[in-house]
Amino acid sequence: VPRIAIIGLGMIGGSIGLALRRAAVPDLEVAGYDSEWGVGGKARKAGAIDRDCRSAGAAAGEGAKLVVIATPIMSIPQVLRELGGSLAEGAVVTDTASTKRQVLRWAEELLPDTVSFVGGHPMAGSERTGIEAADAALFDGCGWAVTPSMKADESALQTVLSLIGLAGATPVFIDSEEHDSYVAAVSHLPLVLSAALFSLASGSPAWSDLAALAGTAFRDLTRLASSSPDLAHGICRTNRENLLHWIDRFADELGRYRRMIADTEDDKALLETFARVQLDRDTFLRTPPRRPQPAAATDEVNMGEQLRALLIGDYAARRLKDLQGALERRPADHDALRRKLEDG
Amino acid sequence: VPRIAIIGLGMIGGSIGLALRRAAVPDLEVAGYDSEWGVGGKARKAGAIDRDCRSAGAAAGEGAKLVVIATPIMSIPQVLRELGGSLAEGAVVTDTASTKRQVLRWAEELLPDTVSFVGGHPMAGSERTGIEAADAALFDGCGWAVTPSMKADESALQTVLSLIGLAGATPVFIDSEEHDSYVAAVSHLPLVLSAALFSLASGSPAWSDLAALAGTAFRDLTRLASSSPDLAHGICRTNRENLLHWIDRFADELGRYRRMIADTEDDKALLETFARVQLDRDTFLRTPPRRPQPAAATDEVNMGEQLRALLIGDYAARRLKDLQGALERRPADHDALRRKLEDG
Repeated sequence: VPRIAIIGLGMIGGSIGLALRRAAVPDLEVAGYDSEWGVGGKARKAGAIDRDCRSAGAAAGEGAKLVVIATPIMSIPQVLRELGGSLAEGAVVTDTASTKRQVLRWAEELLPDTVSFVGGHPMAGSERTGIEAADAALFDGCGWAVTPSMKADESALQTVLSLIGLAGATPVFIDSEEHDSYVAAVSHLPLVLSAALFSLASGSPAWSDLAALAGTAFRDLTRLASSSPDLAHGICRTNRENLLHWIDRFADELGRYRRMIADTEDDKALLETFARVQLDRDTFLRTPPRRPQPAAATDEVNMGEQLRALLIGDYAARRLKDLQGALERRPADHDALRRKLEDG
Repeated sequence: VPRIAIIGLGMIGGSIGLALRRAAVPDLEVAGYDSEWGVGGKARKAGAIDRDCRSAGAAAGEGAKLVVIATPIMSIPQVLRELGGSLAEGAVVTDTASTKRQVLRWAEELLPDTVSFVGGHPMAGSERTGIEAADAALFDGCGWAVTPSMKADESALQTVLSLIGLAGATPVFIDSEEHDSYVAAVSHLPLVLSAALFSLASGSPAWSDLAALAGTAFRDLTRLASSSPDLAHGICRTNRENLLHWIDRFADELGRYRRMIADTEDDKALLETFARVQLDRDTFLRTPPRRPQPAAATDEVNMGEQLRALLIGDYAARRLKDLQGALERRPADHDALRRKLEDG
């Protein structure tokens, strides 16, 4: 029976397991491991995994063809070391961490040459954490950044693409440096702003009065302040330069608003700025770039067959055709993917 | 038939009308006016008002005892001028604007001495706008800041309290200066941060790539960037000093995070800061200060009777008892209210 291993059974790892179960791929075993005691058992009861293993090596051993690392980012080097000796030749390793450049470096350094690493980052999730927050539909309609390593071959990439498709997400091919630079702006900066807003307010001597007047605006803007400290810390540590760059640019932009608000002579600039922002955001919401619908049920079945075929090695005939089809369906990613394939 | 007039039939004014209808106060007429053509008709069809009037004066005229101004804040002086000559002696005027000090000044300056002004600010709402977004349950469980003017008498205050109770909200007695200072931190600063984050990202040359990677974090953090430009502008113009103060404090706090992120030697401070923020926010969510449940149905009936009694003037016997009860039920607001009553 082909096997997938999931290391780290929090909200993301658990949701991947539940999504695989939802897809009902025939004859597939999902093994799991979580370093926190009792989490593996909960994941098995929730249906996120079939087998609760006692170590990352045990989950990945006995020939797992695909290993998904969904631990906090700062734990990834240790997981890669633990996996090293247990991985079958030709195994595909992927991850779900919020930054990609450092993870690719770790994989390059710590994984044997006989396995392929394809970085991944599902652009889903929330401030909730743990297996209790896992949801088979978490990734439906979301983007999922894909950053293959230099060594990853086509079949490894296709295996990860199948997983992403089964999870209801759409792959976004991107260079790891670009990825880290962009998510610094749209994900990591918001996290820091959210934490800073909350700590500013809650550290104020007037906090009890502020809290009494805090409505949905404050609660929404500080939602990310409830993120896992491990996640926030790992992001800051592995995407430092990009994050500092965007913090500085944000400080400049806030300064621009400050000047407009302070300027009582020029009323027009402020009103026009707010009008422009409202318009642009409404446009963004109405025409979200590359935000696709989840795959239809029939596609999922096909992708399940495809994933299984890839895992058991029976894909040679369809592989190039499928890959070609993927390229044609995603013209925007064409060059990035081709470059990756040529690199690999 | 006692009458309430609602001037401005957007999301807030419309929701107040729908909440009054939900409360089913017997023999009460709700007249409405909106300066935008067609909005009054829509509000009447939606059940938010009984009568669509052709001017603020017409809606408030013919003896309306309570006038609710729910227009954009910068329109309030003009509305107050229009109302001036039409208001019945003893009428109560309230508003729903996001800032209170400037509104109280305008009321002081522009309303005749024969009417009472009680400032109000429902801490509800969203970035949505217009009568289409009106909802009878919008205020359920929310706080509603109450800032009586120096001239407002007890019955005027009690009338506004009844309206707030009928809407399912709970009054938060607060001085207008304190109000503006606090909401600058928990409402107006978030609005500016949200707009600045969106305009920073959307103004970047990499915007199409950023947008493709933008997930729930970015969408949530920029939600307030979709606020009405009139609202945002009015807030900045009427709460300038407080807002500038909190922008500066936020810039300092962001600088503190920047230093921790840049400091690769001291890992502990960053991790501990995120852990503390997560803990404090979870505490805040679990024990929201003074965030009460909506009034039960029986209370609403009583409040409807009370509001009607107040409007028709038949309240003298119960007034002091009710007020005393209100004081006992809200010990935290006791002093503020007593001060207000003594001032008034």
